[in-house]
Amino acid sequence: MKSIQEILPNMSFGGDYNPEQWDESVWKRDAELMKKAGVNLVSVGIFSWSVLETQEDQFEFEWLDRVLDLLYEHGIYACLATATASPPAWLTKKYPDVTAVNEQGQPYHFGSRQHYSPNSPSYKRAVEKLVSALAERYKDHPGVKMWHINNEYGCHVSECYSTYSLYAFRDWLKKRYGTIEELNQAWGTSFWSQRYTEWSEIDFPVRQATFYNPGQKLDYKRFMNDSLFELYMIEKRILRDVTPTIPVFTNFMYQFKPLDYHEWAKETDVVTWDTYPDPREGVPYRHAFHHDLMRSLRHGQPFFIMEQASGHVNWRDINLTKEPGEMRLWSYSAVARGADAIMYFQWRQGKAGAEKFHSAMIPHSDSEESRTYREVQALGNELKKLGELTGSKVEAKVAILFDWENWWAVELEGKPHNKLDYMETVMAYYKPLYDVNVAIDIVHPDTDLSGYELVIAPMLYAMKESTATSFETYVRKGGKMVFSYFSGIADLHDRIYVGGYPGPIRKLLGLSIDEFVPLAEGEQVKLRDKSGVYACQTWTESIQLENAEALAAFTDTWLNEYPAVTHNRYGDGDVFYIGTSPDPEWLSEFILSRLKDAGIASPKAHQEGLEIQERTGENGRFLFLLNHSKETKTVKTGWKGVALLKDEPIDDTLTIESREVVIIKMS
Amino acid sequence: MKSIQEILPNMSFGGDYNPEQWDESVWKRDAELMKKAGVNLVSVGIFSWSVLETQEDQFEFEWLDRVLDLLYEHGIYACLATATASPPAWLTKKYPDVTAVNEQGQPYHFGSRQHYSPNSPSYKRAVEKLVSALAERYKDHPGVKMWHINNEYGCHVSECYSTYSLYAFRDWLKKRYGTIEELNQAWGTSFWSQRYTEWSEIDFPVRQATFYNPGQKLDYKRFMNDSLFELYMIEKRILRDVTPTIPVFTNFMYQFKPLDYHEWAKETDVVTWDTYPDPREGVPYRHAFHHDLMRSLRHGQPFFIMEQASGHVNWRDINLTKEPGEMRLWSYSAVARGADAIMYFQWRQGKAGAEKFHSAMIPHSDSEESRTYREVQALGNELKKLGELTGSKVEAKVAILFDWENWWAVELEGKPHNKLDYMETVMAYYKPLYDVNVAIDIVHPDTDLSGYELVIAPMLYAMKESTATSFETYVRKGGKMVFSYFSGIADLHDRIYVGGYPGPIRKLLGLSIDEFVPLAEGEQVKLRDKSGVYACQTWTESIQLENAEALAAFTDTWLNEYPAVTHNRYGDGDVFYIGTSPDPEWLSEFILSRLKDAGIASPKAHQEGLEIQERTGENGRFLFLLNHSKETKTVKTGWKGVALLKDEPIDDTLTIESREVVIIKMS
Amino acid sequence: MKSIQEILPNMSFGGDYNPEQWDESVWKRDAELMKKAGVNLVSVGIFSWSVLETQEDQFEFEWLDRVLDLLYEHGIYACLATATASPPAWLTKKYPDVTAVNEQGQPYHFGSRQHYSPNSPSYKRAVEKLVSALAERYKDHPGVKMWHINNEYGCHVSECYSTYSLYAFRDWLKKRYGTIEELNQAWGTSFWSQRYTEWSEIDFPVRQATFYNPGQKLDYKRFMNDSLFELYMIEKRILRDVTPTIPVFTNFMYQFKPLDYHEWAKETDVVTWDTYPDPREGVPYRHAFHHDLMRSLRHGQPFFIMEQASGHVNWRDINLTKEPGEMRLWSYSAVARGADAIMYFQWRQGKAGAEKFHSAMIPHSDSEESRTYREVQALGNELKKLGELTGSKVEAKVAILFDWENWWAVELEGKPHNKLDYMETVMAYYKPLYDVNVAIDIVHPDTDLSGYELVIAPMLYAMKESTATSFETYVRKGGKMVFSYFSGIADLHDRIYVGGYPGPIRKLLGLSIDEFVPLAEGEQVKLRDKSGVYACQTWTESIQLENAEALAAFTDTWLNEYPAVTHNRYGDGDVFYIGTSPDPEWLSEFILSRLKDAGIASPKAHQEGLEIQERTGENGRFLFLLNHSKETKTVKTGWKGVALLKDEPIDDTLTIESREVVIIKMS
Repeated sequence: MKSIQEILPNMSFGGDYNPEQWDESVWKRDAELMKKAGVNLVSVGIFSWSVLETQEDQFEFEWLDRVLDLLYEHGIYACLATATASPPAWLTKKYPDVTAVNEQGQPYHFGSRQHYSPNSPSYKRAVEKLVSALAERYKDHPGVKMWHINNEYGCHVSECYSTYSLYAFRDWLKKRYGTIEELNQAWGTSFWSQRYTEWSEIDFPVRQATFYNPGQKLDYKRFMNDSLFELYMIEKRILRDVTPTIPVFTNFMYQFKPLDYHEWAKETDVVTWDTYPDPREGVPYRHAFHHDLMRSLRHGQPFFIMEQASGHVNWRDINLTKEPGEMRLWSYSAVARGADAIMYFQWRQGKAGAEKFHSAMIPHSDSEESRTYREVQALGNELKKLGELTGSKVEAKVAILFDWENWWAVELEGKPHNKLDYMETVMAYYKPLYDVNVAIDIVHPDTDLSGYELVIAPMLYAMKESTATSFETYVRKGGKMVFSYFSGIADLHDRIYVGGYPGPIRKLLGLSIDEFVPLAEGEQVKLRDKSGVYACQTWTESIQLENAEALAAFTDTWLNEYPAVTHNRYGDGDVFYIGTSPDPEWLSEFILSRLKDAGIASPKAHQEGLEIQERTGENGRFLFLLNHSKETKTVKTGWKGVALLKDEPIDDTLTIESREVVIIKMS
Repeated sequence: MKSIQEILPNMSFGGDYNPEQWDESVWKRDAELMKKAGVNLVSVGIFSWSVLETQEDQFEFEWLDRVLDLLYEHGIYACLATATASPPAWLTKKYPDVTAVNEQGQPYHFGSRQHYSPNSPSYKRAVEKLVSALAERYKDHPGVKMWHINNEYGCHVSECYSTYSLYAFRDWLKKRYGTIEELNQAWGTSFWSQRYTEWSEIDFPVRQATFYNPGQKLDYKRFMNDSLFELYMIEKRILRDVTPTIPVFTNFMYQFKPLDYHEWAKETDVVTWDTYPDPREGVPYRHAFHHDLMRSLRHGQPFFIMEQASGHVNWRDINLTKEPGEMRLWSYSAVARGADAIMYFQWRQGKAGAEKFHSAMIPHSDSEESRTYREVQALGNELKKLGELTGSKVEAKVAILFDWENWWAVELEGKPHNKLDYMETVMAYYKPLYDVNVAIDIVHPDTDLSGYELVIAPMLYAMKESTATSFETYVRKGGKMVFSYFSGIADLHDRIYVGGYPGPIRKLLGLSIDEFVPLAEGEQVKLRDKSGVYACQTWTESIQLENAEALAAFTDTWLNEYPAVTHNRYGDGDVFYIGTSPDPEWLSEFILSRLKDAGIASPKAHQEGLEIQERTGENGRFLFLLNHSKETKTVKTGWKGVALLKDEPIDDTLTIESREVVIIKMS
Repeated sequence: MKSIQEILPNMSFGGDYNPEQWDESVWKRDAELMKKAGVNLVSVGIFSWSVLETQEDQFEFEWLDRVLDLLYEHGIYACLATATASPPAWLTKKYPDVTAVNEQGQPYHFGSRQHYSPNSPSYKRAVEKLVSALAERYKDHPGVKMWHINNEYGCHVSECYSTYSLYAFRDWLKKRYGTIEELNQAWGTSFWSQRYTEWSEIDFPVRQATFYNPGQKLDYKRFMNDSLFELYMIEKRILRDVTPTIPVFTNFMYQFKPLDYHEWAKETDVVTWDTYPDPREGVPYRHAFHHDLMRSLRHGQPFFIMEQASGHVNWRDINLTKEPGEMRLWSYSAVARGADAIMYFQWRQGKAGAEKFHSAMIPHSDSEESRTYREVQALGNELKKLGELTGSKVEAKVAILFDWENWWAVELEGKPHNKLDYMETVMAYYKPLYDVNVAIDIVHPDTDLSGYELVIAPMLYAMKESTATSFETYVRKGGKMVFSYFSGIADLHDRIYVGGYPGPIRKLLGLSIDEFVPLAEGEQVKLRDKSGVYACQTWTESIQLENAEALAAFTDTWLNEYPAVTHNRYGDGDVFYIGTSPDPEWLSEFILSRLKDAGIASPKAHQEGLEIQERTGENGRFLFLLNHSKETKTVKTGWKGVALLKDEPIDDTLTIESREVVIIKMS
């Protein structure tokens, strides 16, 4: 198969296109307005099942033929959707097992979307038939450049409690553990008289009298991830078989806990994701984190923004809109961090249904003069200037470790502190790096770390012993790592490494911890280091130094003089440990020192509110400067290069207006 | 049939009477204390089914005969209840379909009240038998003056999810739409692959995977309203048939969203309602709104207060009591706005059961010396002086448009701003009118508006095109209208009028709106007009003037200088539009200007806290002055007339103590 | 049977021991560490059912034999658990009726703990077999000193809505009422047409259309208490039969509303309870209340702390730990108030399962050097010095009345004020007594009060007439009582005593109340007495003096000058009534005055933060001084005696460090 860049050599621009919601008379106007707006790629048919297969085995493709032809005639390619996200009414009624069952044991009612059970035999059978028919029909259509499999897997239904799911859960466990005794060990069922003697005794870990078994809950999460993944693989196998040269993907989501995208990304030809920052956030640095994460999922390969809003969404309590310039600015932030496509949900704002107040590329007024269309059009035509960017990479020397299995484990109930938020903790360590415009990868703990100068592991509660061993290897050879508190406590069954926390990384850190001492909400104590005294909150603990030295100590608590932050020299490397949730100002300084130690300079100058990122590829180095602030920024360059959007050489001094973007091809 | 006024020529006074809760020995004392308190009308038997029909077809009317005779002997008339509100235990057990089913699919348990399903065949059959038997038994009883049908329809169960309700829903849809294709169009089922191919595929719009289909939800609300209404009509038809000269009604409720009382009122002979202001509110102007609404439902015909509390209720978290004088004052507020009856729940405070701590006319102490009985008695005897008031009307030149279908539509999920509150918005426009004592009707948008000088349409999101046309006609002929933001956006299926907001009234308003720009909670921007700068919140938008002129503009936002308030001259009339939620002070001034334009003076003088309203009838004009404030009010009259409660001519200066009332028959 | 003191003549010290969670290799180390820590008693097998009976009738006791023998060899006795708290997976699957059903009608899933239905025939049968087998097996084991029946009955499942429970509820009602007419009377079913004609019409008082019938709800609470109690009695009867000389108990809980421990305590040989103060509380005076309550349940007999945490729990949102010294201090507070045993959950911190982060006597590090083990070990060895204390009593002259049936009744919905909290109200009256170190019993209203000088009855809403009569007798003979508002209002079916509040105690109080006037949240009015003006909140009322005199009056409300606090001389005694929720400072002064009237001195000196309590027994008088403050306290003694922990005579001046304890054997 060709690379994505070969298939789509320019920056892609477009959105979801749902022609079945409109009279055919509108389609022509759509194609023309698309062309005018620089659209070159649309996702077609995501919710078309009910009009593609109107009764069982009764396929109606003619309308879709006409749509694809019309688009192609206008120079617009299609990500053709497999249309399986929303099984139609007739299927749902005919085969009741299609429907997922909620935690209360109730099947969902038909009438919304994506209500299927991932373990429904009837749904799988129907999917196979539809996807095969689509693949056969369109395998040779020149406009079909990619397959959009299903849609946002797990978005609404990421857990199912149907009987089929129960049987599948037991089968999954049997496959995982082999013997019931092995499962009893993994789940620690000696506790609370929970021992199983047969697989058929196992039920779902919901609606129990009190706290669940953590091992069981964790396995249920894995099982559901695997169940949904198997749906994806059913489709992928068919498509690969019939259309081996057309890439496949499914669109990922923001901060989405149920799916282990590290596993999924291995089987997608390109990572695509849907980004919906709430304008209330101001600078969307949390979404920047996700750009970095999504890029890292396939080890730096450029990703696609498959959906964003031109203005506002409709599913928040109050749906603020992007102010003039914000949509463009945030789109370029994605490009700067590795995006090769900017797509929207959706092309034309719907007239009816649940999402009719979601913004689109063409609003309800259908007016070319609308602010929305004008901004979309401007961006679409501007992106044409950036063709040489596609395929270029972001080179990061810093990595943050991020692991879905740990996310699941650390947020299970029954912890010392039950308001710990893994994502927030990771974000606290990401923010200071973002602020200084360092390039950052977000990688799985089992990734080969040897290319990184600095690796940060926030709250890596659950880990395998082998992972700890690979950390030791990395550090011994000169690597630098930072760990936060509550790391290395449990294995991947959420069983404690007994004999002294943090079991597997105790030697690496050169310390052990006698007790965890969480703080009440709002409670603060202090840490003192050579630079001063700083607040910290959420967590303290009694660290006992074994080989490490203390860099900071607690004060203003009964843990007075206990170490709060430590450093351990291990082999040729250095390991730092932070036993609390420190003041952001302190953490920022700490991270800057680590960057300095590691010899990592942030790219060029940096100023508050000025995002700077760099991409490098066959066609050269590209520097992005994005002004998120309300003020004009001035940057002394001393560089040589061409400002691509203006297509003119840069000056010694760059003046960047509020919400403006400069992309420099460095020479 | 005679008019209500002919049947009950005096002010009616009394309450719910539940003799079955007491030994027969108490009844005599009840009748005497009633007489002493001026009671002339009681509602009997509302919850008596289980003692009227003790087993299927086993009716026991003797006790009720004795009650009605005893009352009649004491000069007390009865609203005889049909007793159908709470089906008895034996019926519920024998015919399980009697029981409504909640959103979770669970039948309600017997043991509370009003648990019936509006679509239960067994309940309907049993109702028919009971109502027929009652009608036959009491058709000639001289004390029975009205039929009280059922009780507070929908109070607890306004939605039912039983199988019978599902079948009925599908039948209702079939009747409404004729073909499944018509339904698909109405609901916009091309969206999210929701197309139906058979009626039997349709399920309830609850327990879905995510957002519901708005058209389906809206139709479900209509269907439930119609289902309950059909129950009412079953009873009415029987009663009309057997007792064609006895008026019927069912009691309405406060701010009750599930029932479209505009439809219901057409089939009641008198509007009656239950008013329970929370004393925390202070001046109950929201209840005044409801007096105006209830009076308007039957186009000005006097209404009955069917229930109020003598002191406190028992179903709030904390049940404050009415302070001395408040019950009387608020009763007269109802009379001033058109009430011809003041009734209570209930006569005698219960000893057991869920409502035993609800106040009554006779409290637990059974003491004539109790504050409660003394205040009740005083009021009852005072009302005897107001006989000539009955039947008189309130003449309003201002109307506020209010529509249940719009209420349902605008508060469906998925809107640009999902915390919009229709009732609160209406109330924001009502308040300044209330404050200046203008008489106000609250009418359906399709009402003939030609008699009004000023018509206000707050947040009339959903409307028919024909409604817009009638607005145009009204304004063209010189009418004045005020619209708020988010009006004229959708049709009654909640489908957008595409092509430029606000579709059907765009010409009338002389503007279009490019985008809605909601504000975050707590966020404020400013509007500036010639008088100054004012805060506004919740909503802004980008108005594009077509024919209108701007009266105020936004400032302090990126919508700077966009119009916030507009005026359009249309035909001989004027239309105003307010594109935000403005500061109440600004709105008050704006409304006063509109009143002035329209030549509407508020009746006589007005002072803060002094409610003034007027009724006019065959017997003359009656002016009510009610002092809700803590201070004594002085009013220069210059009028001639008699103060009815004191039965003496009024002075040039009226002195009205706190919580006092003066009712002047003007001469 | 010998007394507990004869069976266990020393202070008992230990915890729950769950050897089945560990390899047998660990057991030996456990026994040795226990011995070293002064452990002399452990609870074994609480959650061992699934390893004791691995399939139906397949008992495996060998491992338990070895455990008990090992312990005994190390001088450690066992409370042998009957292991019935968590029925195993195989039983739950084989007999589905074992599982309780929640309010939603859903059976709990297996996989947590204590999921059994109290009305399951299969569970009862299985319990009988297991308990019989255990009793036969270990009846002669010299190490088995007590039977620990089940565990924390009702902890998670205190309500069951299974079909078996429904049948049992009907049978229970039939037994209680004899005829359906009697039930109709008791529940007041004339209200809302709720009359029953057959027992089979009765359903559970949940999932109703609106407010439940209070009588039905109250009886359901009684029924569930009785159902759980019957489970206990099934086990007790078997154990008594087979092992008549071994005491039995089940462990009680903190502030546990569902179970009427007054009834339960009659059938336990010793009261044991599980105390888990949240360190956020600071001084755990609410737990001190429970020590007093638990001691009073069996009329002063010393109780056992059956569970406490060595440090932190794991089931709060954030689990703070006990700081150094707190665990010891709070343990002695229990001893001071009558505890003869200090036990923990659990011996060894678990490696897996829901409670792995709950502290234990040996933490995850398994280290003797851990702070936890060091503190446990120190306390265990210290307690050995206190053998002569066992069996000694606390002598109280003040009693607070406390009644579970009243707790249930007063917190049913539909009250004048629906945020009243019975326990908080009781605590408000307990606090001033606690603060001055007076010994207090917490007793049932029907207790013989003649031994008390002062009796306080906070919010005794529901009472029998005979209870009121016994109060009259007590006061007539010179007793002193204090009642709070909302006392004496209803009978035990929650039916009002009509004819003037507070019916049964109106004569005793010398007053009646015309109306209740609750205050809004945050609202305050004032009461004025001869000492000044004080805030009061929550509740006011219009008291009409009949024989009583006013001690304080309301001001700053429309109830101006109405009495707020009264005193009535009745026979040779005095009765006080407080018609509001007064300022704590005022209440404290008021209570001190009552103590002074009653001639009750608080023991010795008292200082803020210094808890002083006394126990008296065959071996003398023992005075406890516990310093809960952060400061060192100095106490002038003038006493003679020996400080037991230091084993040296006391000085004239005691110096007690923060968190220190002095126990003096007085001479």
